[in-house]
Amino acid sequence: MSDLPALSTAQVRRTPTTLADGRDFFYYDDSEPYVSGEQTRRLDDPRPLADRFAPVESADGSTQPVTGPEMRYDVLTGEWVPMASHRMNRPHLPGGNANPLAPAKPGAEYSDGEIPDTDYDVVVFENRFPSLMRVPGASDEVTHLDGDDLYPVRPAVGRCEVICFSPDASASLSSVSPTRMRTIVEAWADRTAALAQIDGVQQVYCFENRGAEIGVTLHHPHGQIYAYPFLTPKTDAMLRQARAHRERTGRNLLRDVLDAELASGRRIVAESEHWVAYVPAAARWPVEVHVAPRRDVPDLPATTDAERTDFAELYLSLLSRLDRFFVDSDGEPMPLPYISGWHQAPASARDDLRLHLQLFSIRRAPGKLKYLAGSESGMGAWISDTTPERIADRLKEIHL
Amino acid sequence: MSDLPALSTAQVRRTPTTLADGRDFFYYDDSEPYVSGEQTRRLDDPRPLADRFAPVESADGSTQPVTGPEMRYDVLTGEWVPMASHRMNRPHLPGGNANPLAPAKPGAEYSDGEIPDTDYDVVVFENRFPSLMRVPGASDEVTHLDGDDLYPVRPAVGRCEVICFSPDASASLSSVSPTRMRTIVEAWADRTAALAQIDGVQQVYCFENRGAEIGVTLHHPHGQIYAYPFLTPKTDAMLRQARAHRERTGRNLLRDVLDAELASGRRIVAESEHWVAYVPAAARWPVEVHVAPRRDVPDLPATTDAERTDFAELYLSLLSRLDRFFVDSDGEPMPLPYISGWHQAPASARDDLRLHLQLFSIRRAPGKLKYLAGSESGMGAWISDTTPERIADRLKEIHL
Repeated sequence: MSDLPALSTAQVRRTPTTLADGRDFFYYDDSEPYVSGEQTRRLDDPRPLADRFAPVESADGSTQPVTGPEMRYDVLTGEWVPMASHRMNRPHLPGGNANPLAPAKPGAEYSDGEIPDTDYDVVVFENRFPSLMRVPGASDEVTHLDGDDLYPVRPAVGRCEVICFSPDASASLSSVSPTRMRTIVEAWADRTAALAQIDGVQQVYCFENRGAEIGVTLHHPHGQIYAYPFLTPKTDAMLRQARAHRERTGRNLLRDVLDAELASGRRIVAESEHWVAYVPAAARWPVEVHVAPRRDVPDLPATTDAERTDFAELYLSLLSRLDRFFVDSDGEPMPLPYISGWHQAPASARDDLRLHLQLFSIRRAPGKLKYLAGSESGMGAWISDTTPERIADRLKEIHL
Repeated sequence: MSDLPALSTAQVRRTPTTLADGRDFFYYDDSEPYVSGEQTRRLDDPRPLADRFAPVESADGSTQPVTGPEMRYDVLTGEWVPMASHRMNRPHLPGGNANPLAPAKPGAEYSDGEIPDTDYDVVVFENRFPSLMRVPGASDEVTHLDGDDLYPVRPAVGRCEVICFSPDASASLSSVSPTRMRTIVEAWADRTAALAQIDGVQQVYCFENRGAEIGVTLHHPHGQIYAYPFLTPKTDAMLRQARAHRERTGRNLLRDVLDAELASGRRIVAESEHWVAYVPAAARWPVEVHVAPRRDVPDLPATTDAERTDFAELYLSLLSRLDRFFVDSDGEPMPLPYISGWHQAPASARDDLRLHLQLFSIRRAPGKLKYLAGSESGMGAWISDTTPERIADRLKEIHL
């Protein structure tokens, strides 16, 4: 693994360790007495997990070398598609259906989940079943499916990490303290800087999927961090637009968008010293909010301490309002299913993109979801059932 | 409305008519005695529906001119997003929750659905709540949201039509006869030719959403036809790839892809005289099949009688196999939720694209769906849980 970046503040203590099967694991502790990794607690993971990269045993008793996930080039669209084509050791944990993100039980021989300690503030670790991974020693070579030039195939190197926002399985991100939220921002920034250094990684995406409606089956508050070995289609599209805009105007597209939102004010739903939250002018989801820094910064590692602290407060307030966006027939708030993720400039285009968070929901009314059917999934053509101004008006009328 | 194209065969009789609120409605009858529009049946729609384009009455008694849907340019991605921003007359039908696609009841004063006749083979009509529509007399002018050059806005002209595959609400497309399937192909081709002539329309998409899992609440077998006033992102991506391929090789990309599949044979799941069905080499959905004609044709109107008849048979067989792709714990086949749609070359690029049908499902296992979460919906980066070869192997082992 590459050298770790320096943390931007002394408030958060990072403790790197390794899980029993070799995966990286990081504690981010934010307050004394630091809860994890102290002498009284164990740092090691004594679970009987096999080395992920040990040869795989076949039914006939022979062994085969481990292979990682591969990705195929979709020649129809120009996009890379990682595929679960790998052959890996996948031992089951003793805990069965236990919550794998819960802290270990005090006194247990070993954790039945992924956390080898009895408490934590925020932790980040490699996903046990990653779609993106580098198998040590495996070739990076481009091959061709069926030997056909039309169908390039490459190892899907990169990383998939999990970030736990709280040791409390019943918490939600909106319910953590501003200090803890600040630690999460610190962890996102720290992992972004570290993952960007991995050979082959082209961009890092920190995101949270929240709610059963978008397929989340594990309700412990957590997010994910993907380090992609390609530019994602969304980033690619934004780069094309940003470069065309710079050629035409000499200016940064996302700066101009923020200035346009500030000049109009019509869709702004929250402002703080360092950040602006607004519904984008062409919002395509039933609920969508972007949060952008006032200062031009390419990614989370480039934000200052003051910006991180300020974001933590603004974001918690925004999440709380979003959880009241829809109310049920009794007038009770309905926690919003949402996807929230950071668009960060890839290393190859630090001047063209600009950091911003995009949060959106597929809920279009209480009990009603927006499904991505023929037009959206077949043609990529979104059709909105509402308008950005209606979304902004609803958000503005919610007071905490 | 433009002049209607000539039908390619005498087997199908098209009877155009108009619904009470002015919408176009077409019967496609395929066998004598033709069931609809005969003297003994009524062709007119006597329902008390208001003119869609009559001025809208406000709460204060004043009237305002009708406005159609608009679309906004998403400057971050370069895509147009139609929005439900219009102000229209939306009278409710007397029938309430009745199936609007069922034939009228014999003897009733008027239908409580959309079909003003007591039987039909196949019908096509304008959607009553379209996302794409031209309001007569409305300006086509590009304006700018907030007066800002970054945010172009245009009327979302175009059309949304509904196609009913059968008068039987409990049927499915896979259960219709080959003759009826052939009539459906004829209707798709006919409407594609007619809609492509509408001023401002850039491409036509005929598709079916099937199954509650993708949000279909009306189970009567039906599909939709969208005439878009822009090139959809998927078509735009395929055109970029096709043009780059032609520059590099001088050849048509989709022709080369079909030839590659034929040469490999590994992912072919059905073949007939005129068509080839295969799992694409970079399939991103848990189930995905493309069906391409052997001959180079840009769109459905360019197919011959023989090709249409042949497709009808191959497609029915494919749909039946797809409905056995997954079986429940008792070994019973589970009808597949799917999206199936025709990629047709837009008028502006008849040589670069090539007709093909794309059918895909979000079901990845019995009781399990692929959700489009952060990576897919936030970044446009699909991650497949399977491989194209596994999909093809499963389809090949299903015999009817």
